[in-house]
Amino acid sequence: MASRTATELVHPDRGELRFTDVAAALSDPVRLAIVARLAQVAPDGELACGTFALPVSKSTQSGHFRTLREAGVIRQRDEGTRRLNRLRRDDLDALFPGLLDLAIAQGHRELSSWSAAEDARADAPAGGRTR
Amino acid sequence: MASRTATELVHPDRGELRFTDVAAALSDPVRLAIVARLAQVAPDGELACGTFALPVSKSTQSGHFRTLREAGVIRQRDEGTRRLNRLRRDDLDALFPGLLDLAIAQGHRELSSWSAAEDARADAPAGGRTR
Repeated sequence: MASRTATELVHPDRGELRFTDVAAALSDPVRLAIVARLAQVAPDGELACGTFALPVSKSTQSGHFRTLREAGVIRQRDEGTRRLNRLRRDDLDALFPGLLDLAIAQGHRELSSWSAAEDARADAPAGGRTR
Repeated sequence: MASRTATELVHPDRGELRFTDVAAALSDPVRLAIVARLAQVAPDGELACGTFALPVSKSTQSGHFRTLREAGVIRQRDEGTRRLNRLRRDDLDALFPGLLDLAIAQGHRELSSWSAAEDARADAPAGGRTR
């Protein structure tokens, strides 16, 4: 009997990647932030889904990872109870040179703006905090 | 009294352009084809909406032009009864270098595939035509 975490993770081959799907996957600030965080780990470095501090619910986050995987932006694999993610840089750079680097730069802007908002909340008096 | 064609055409300023909006605008094959056709006319060249032979209805086509304009990919202006379009290459190249050229290359692929499909239909015996 398959274990609960053994979902089959489908990935498009390089030849199946479409610019329209990749562009759609990159049209969301949370997904750009995920891409930027993955780019911070060394080439082929992997990060577990749980390690991304994203301003969205866990299920929304899962949907974003799935969108990125189905478009061919990331590879996912399960290791025990963790789902690990890495960028498909070779495939993307071969097909759409420069696109991933643009997305990474934009993702870093998103991360910075969230971080600045976080600092502003931390600096505010307790009564003024909104969460 | 305003004439029927004098719709105000709103354009985001360069500073208002967002990568997420531009990526979303470029995530559709018809919009990529529009971008590629506009790139064929000389820098700052303009094409009227009616001159694009696109495999979609006129109203769908209008929606695609509006999406491109609102994202900041094209500028539109009315001249008499014609609505003219041109790429915002300077703005896009300054903000997202390389993105427009990727989109143009992908758009040419779309145009080629439609053209090949058109040729195949033209070559087929009359009974076999599907339109």
